[in-house]
Amino acid sequence: MTAPYTLILLRHGQSEWNKTNQFTGWVDVRLTEQGRNEAARGGELLKESGILPDVLHTSVLSRAIQTANIALDSADRLWIPVKRSWRLNERHYGALQGKDKAQTLEEFGDEQFMLWRRSFDVPPPPLADDDQYSQVGDPRYVGIDGEVPRTESLKIVIDRMLPYWESEIKPDLAAGKTVLVTAHGNSLRGLVKHLDKISDADIAELNIPTGIPLVYHLDENFEPIGAGEYLDPEAAAAGAAAVANQGKK
Amino acid sequence: MTAPYTLILLRHGQSEWNKTNQFTGWVDVRLTEQGRNEAARGGELLKESGILPDVLHTSVLSRAIQTANIALDSADRLWIPVKRSWRLNERHYGALQGKDKAQTLEEFGDEQFMLWRRSFDVPPPPLADDDQYSQVGDPRYVGIDGEVPRTESLKIVIDRMLPYWESEIKPDLAAGKTVLVTAHGNSLRGLVKHLDKISDADIAELNIPTGIPLVYHLDENFEPIGAGEYLDPEAAAAGAAAVANQGKK
Repeated sequence: MTAPYTLILLRHGQSEWNKTNQFTGWVDVRLTEQGRNEAARGGELLKESGILPDVLHTSVLSRAIQTANIALDSADRLWIPVKRSWRLNERHYGALQGKDKAQTLEEFGDEQFMLWRRSFDVPPPPLADDDQYSQVGDPRYVGIDGEVPRTESLKIVIDRMLPYWESEIKPDLAAGKTVLVTAHGNSLRGLVKHLDKISDADIAELNIPTGIPLVYHLDENFEPIGAGEYLDPEAAAAGAAAVANQGKK
Repeated sequence: MTAPYTLILLRHGQSEWNKTNQFTGWVDVRLTEQGRNEAARGGELLKESGILPDVLHTSVLSRAIQTANIALDSADRLWIPVKRSWRLNERHYGALQGKDKAQTLEEFGDEQFMLWRRSFDVPPPPLADDDQYSQVGDPRYVGIDGEVPRTESLKIVIDRMLPYWESEIKPDLAAGKTVLVTAHGNSLRGLVKHLDKISDADIAELNIPTGIPLVYHLDENFEPIGAGEYLDPEAAAAGAAAVANQGKK
């Protein structure tokens, strides 16, 4: 039996704030040189595998869009249609946005730090609207107005991401298109949690490495046929371990 | 009176075959380093002018898409919605695709050369479907199938471009969006001919420089209010002269 639908997930490569170890969330930082190289490598993996996207979905954050643009250039698929949505954005990190991760760990202790980073439904304190890292007033969110979050838990991310999965991504899959979703650690963790039916407790242990396409084959009910497969499994295992250790001294 | 609509036209920067002086048409060559710099400068001009696009329309050729991606990155507008269409593609240059411009000029003489380059309705000889530079079978044109051109005159370009202007670009303008069209020498010449009501004879003299945003203010009937304005008029004049001299020895 051939799986009818193919879904590719791609987490953006290293950003400026990944490099400086700051909580990023909705702050619109760009990719570093290393991040650009990761994106190019991701596109080459797509090309080598022959799993070529017919349509792209991205968040509205520059680091995910840059990743998609570079990867599609490498894969010779710049021309595919693209849809963007804030619903694929990274988790809004509330008052932690802009803060140094190691410093936050030191200041608040391991328990509180891991609760904010990995608990399913505990959001960090909200970000003030007049904070330099607030997104209130950003023209890209004009359409969603009062909905611009001030903080989010993973649960909140999933609640605002799934309607987009249902209304925009599923129809493209159902039309027989190979779909590429280029997004972020937490929006992609949310999607994987949904697909693989991971419990609220177990999702804390799931880390998605950057820049390596993760391919799902789905049946006609959009249920995964087997586990998602990274196109470079060795690099993916190393990358996931690195993500898990972020903020550790 | 304030013009209700704003339209920005941007011709892609130098491509590999602009550099080597070959007829390109629908062959999907990439930007050179210079072309990438032109695109970045185009984006900076948008940012400096404060004329910021709300939506992007591009062709499905990589050099126009690269130009848009780089310019929007410079302008901090990567997140705007994008639509792509083959109807914004460069003129298909038929059997000239891939040929050296200076060599073609020498081989066929000045009169025939200028007829192919600048006549309104004389297309070059058609490109064979088994030619290495044919687009028949290219996955990006699956949807248009039998319509993939084998050669085009400027008249043919306009005939296939204007339906897109009417059905896709005008509605975005009518919705109050500032529209950026990132495309090619001949698809943009066709659009300027339409907007400025340039005659079939006079359009031969119109050259559009690369990488410099050309801004039109349009009234409620989509008629230009005054002439289109380049955001860097001096560079635009120099660039247009350079285009006019292409293929000259």
